[in-house]
Amino acid sequence: MAQILPDALLDSIENLGKMPGVGSRTAERYAYYLLKNDPIISQKIAESLLNLHKNVKQCPVTFALISDTEEVSPLYSSETRDKKLVAVVEEPLDIVALEKTKQFNGTYHVLGGAISPIDGIGPEQLHLNELAERISKDEVREIIIAANASVEGESTALYLQRFLREKGFNNLIISRLARGIPVGVDLEYADQITLSHALEGRRSL
Amino acid sequence: MAQILPDALLDSIENLGKMPGVGSRTAERYAYYLLKNDPIISQKIAESLLNLHKNVKQCPVTFALISDTEEVSPLYSSETRDKKLVAVVEEPLDIVALEKTKQFNGTYHVLGGAISPIDGIGPEQLHLNELAERISKDEVREIIIAANASVEGESTALYLQRFLREKGFNNLIISRLARGIPVGVDLEYADQITLSHALEGRRSL
Repeated sequence: MAQILPDALLDSIENLGKMPGVGSRTAERYAYYLLKNDPIISQKIAESLLNLHKNVKQCPVTFALISDTEEVSPLYSSETRDKKLVAVVEEPLDIVALEKTKQFNGTYHVLGGAISPIDGIGPEQLHLNELAERISKDEVREIIIAANASVEGESTALYLQRFLREKGFNNLIISRLARGIPVGVDLEYADQITLSHALEGRRSL
Repeated sequence: MAQILPDALLDSIENLGKMPGVGSRTAERYAYYLLKNDPIISQKIAESLLNLHKNVKQCPVTFALISDTEEVSPLYSSETRDKKLVAVVEEPLDIVALEKTKQFNGTYHVLGGAISPIDGIGPEQLHLNELAERISKDEVREIIIAANASVEGESTALYLQRFLREKGFNNLIISRLARGIPVGVDLEYADQITLSHALEGRRSL
């Protein structure tokens, strides 16, 4: 059978299709769009992807993503950040979401995932001991557990709480992000677990 | 304010966000996925995108996409394809959809878009004269207009039909793809225009 599309286009479709949630139709659309448009766009994507692994590393203290030229995360080293207040998140991009609130002046600690036996991720794969070290060294006052509101996030939060108590940090305040109705959502559309949390966490006016 | 994400990651997010329909959240997800996974994946995407424009060109006869090493589209030059039967499509990727049916042994002609005054695309930007030349040269018997079922596709089909009649191709059969209920769709969910087409194009059993 004659070849329908040229190799270079098929290659791009195949490789773009390796990104998460990108099926063959979407990959075709991406590749054809790039082909139709200025080559500079394809070139810029290519160059940034080639630099991605070279110029990004993990902060040895917080496990946030930092530039190759940095020693530690600026969100940790900055004078303006309160090192005694630590938000514990699952993944580096969770930091972006929290920073956008502009409400948090503490520092971060990235666990590197959540406990998930199905995916083979146990507590030993998370940066828990490094967190314990930080708590001692920086004399951390409060840990805000900012895990996702998923089953894995809940398990991780529970495990972390027990882990910190067992380590003997008795004066440490351990808090969690509030669960409740998100802004803009009608009560009738809220699921029952969220609603239970909202009832439980109700605040007197 | 301290920088939240390293430059190399921000660059990748920004550049991936130039693809169609990719917002900043999706671009973040793509970039972070690539960063977490084997660098070879990013590298392969980068390499294929760098080759994309270099190694793909348009077939001078059918305007399909071909490799830089090919003279004309193999879907035209192949002995097995009937040059007297031509399916006219808007874009090169439409050929992929038709080829997947394995029901068509004619050749293709890519118009390079559809007539759309809003987007500033008039008939003069489409490969219409080249189609007329092919019809004369290859003694084409039938033209199947396989334009999209959109307003632009409809206008283009009407314009093309008139154009070919004005050119004096009086023996040429001009047909269009059937409109009707797609397979697997319940009658109650079909829109009224599709249903009107389906009624109009009904076939006696």
